[in-house]
Amino acid sequence: MEAMRPLDALNLARNKKVMIDLKNGKQILGTLKAFDIHINIVLDDAEEREAGEVKRKLGKVFIRGDTIILISPQ
Amino acid sequence: MEAMRPLDALNLARNKKVMIDLKNGKQILGTLKAFDIHINIVLDDAEEREAGEVKRKLGKVFIRGDTIILISPQ
Amino acid sequence: MEAMRPLDALNLARNKKVMIDLKNGKQILGTLKAFDIHINIVLDDAEEREAGEVKRKLGKVFIRGDTIILISPQ
Amino acid sequence: MEAMRPLDALNLARNKKVMIDLKNGKQILGTLKAFDIHINIVLDDAEEREAGEVKRKLGKVFIRGDTIILISPQ
Amino acid sequence: MEAMRPLDALNLARNKKVMIDLKNGKQILGTLKAFDIHINIVLDDAEEREAGEVKRKLGKVFIRGDTIILISPQ
Amino acid sequence: MEAMRPLDALNLARNKKVMIDLKNGKQILGTLKAFDIHINIVLDDAEEREAGEVKRKLGKVFIRGDTIILISPQ
Amino acid sequence: MEAMRPLDALNLARNKKVMIDLKNGKQILGTLKAFDIHINIVLDDAEEREAGEVKRKLGKVFIRGDTIILISPQ
Repeated sequence: MEAMRPLDALNLARNKKVMIDLKNGKQILGTLKAFDIHINIVLDDAEEREAGEVKRKLGKVFIRGDTIILISPQ
Repeated sequence: MEAMRPLDALNLARNKKVMIDLKNGKQILGTLKAFDIHINIVLDDAEEREAGEVKRKLGKVFIRGDTIILISPQ
Repeated sequence: MEAMRPLDALNLARNKKVMIDLKNGKQILGTLKAFDIHINIVLDDAEEREAGEVKRKLGKVFIRGDTIILISPQ
Repeated sequence: MEAMRPLDALNLARNKKVMIDLKNGKQILGTLKAFDIHINIVLDDAEEREAGEVKRKLGKVFIRGDTIILISPQ
Repeated sequence: MEAMRPLDALNLARNKKVMIDLKNGKQILGTLKAFDIHINIVLDDAEEREAGEVKRKLGKVFIRGDTIILISPQ
Repeated sequence: MEAMRPLDALNLARNKKVMIDLKNGKQILGTLKAFDIHINIVLDDAEEREAGEVKRKLGKVFIRGDTIILISPQ
Repeated sequence: MEAMRPLDALNLARNKKVMIDLKNGKQILGTLKAFDIHINIVLDDAEEREAGEVKRKLGKVFIRGDTIILISPQ
């Protein structure tokens, strides 16, 4: 009855660009390389954005799951 | 004695439009595609709203369960 | 020795009107249809109230347990 | 070596008046009817107080444990 | 190699006066009667203090562990 | 492959001076006597500091792990 | 199907410089020596930064995982 699970959607986004909204109001854009059941995330070529502007080049970055609001494939 | 469980209600809303209120005061409207026991959610054709106005087109989006206040089928 | 458990009280409120206070200061009034051990709740005929006034008709709504302060049968 | 456990103290307060301080700064006074290991609580004849004044008659009320600071038998 | 565990220190403070700092900025002074692995605490002869002044006599009080910053035997 | 674990570092700091930063902005300096997997900590000869100044002599103190940001051996 | 896991990325950063963003807005720069599944971290030669400036030399430091937003290898 449970046709698709949320982590399946993340799996389809692997190696694709995703935008991540964080609880502190910032956004991280990058290529999704890895995730786990806690929604810990690793991105490549990541950059931090605030109000649409690039604030910081992060390159590879590990993001702790409990700081994430949403993940949107681009 | 426990006639229906909360996740049964989410299951009935699958493939239907739902409005999700987030703890940061924003709302996400979209088609419910997947959920799990943590209330992690995947929506299709999602858009973010604030005070009733569309703020952002999100398309497919993964929402972390612990950021959700309520989910209301439309 | 433990005569009654808190979830027994919720079970007695099933199909009855309840008022739910949320951590964000809002209240949801509706008919209790389902709950689980996380206190995730499903209401029918729900409406959101703020300072006693109806702010929004929600109809059926799923409320995530960790956003709830208290549930009061009406 | 562990002579008494905290839940034993709650058990002794069953059917007695207790004052509960909540994390949102409010207080609930009522008769303790049930509790569990999450400190979810059910009170009878409950009323909400703010700065010592009765703000709301609640009657029977279920309080989610993670919103509670302390419980003081009266 | 792990010579002493934190709960051993609480056990040595049983039946002694302790000062507890809460996350809401208040302090509770009382006699430690019980604790558990969640650091839920029961005090006897407790009083609430703010900025060094007694604000409220609490008598026996149950304090939920997740609201506690530190416990200092007096 | 996992050469050292974080708790090993705490174990090496046992009986040594450590500075602990708390989430409420305060610092506790003292001698590390005990810790557990929740990072609950017991210090001896502890004192609370704010902006570098000693605010309070605490002596022996139990600190609940979830209130800690970091622990730095001195 | 799950090619890489987030902790694998941390493992590759072992003994390398990493920048850690904390939930309180501060940053810690140091050499990653250890981590665990809670993302508790030990750094060597750590320093705290605020707005790009060094605020404090920390040397060896244990950081509790739940205070971390992201970890970026330098």
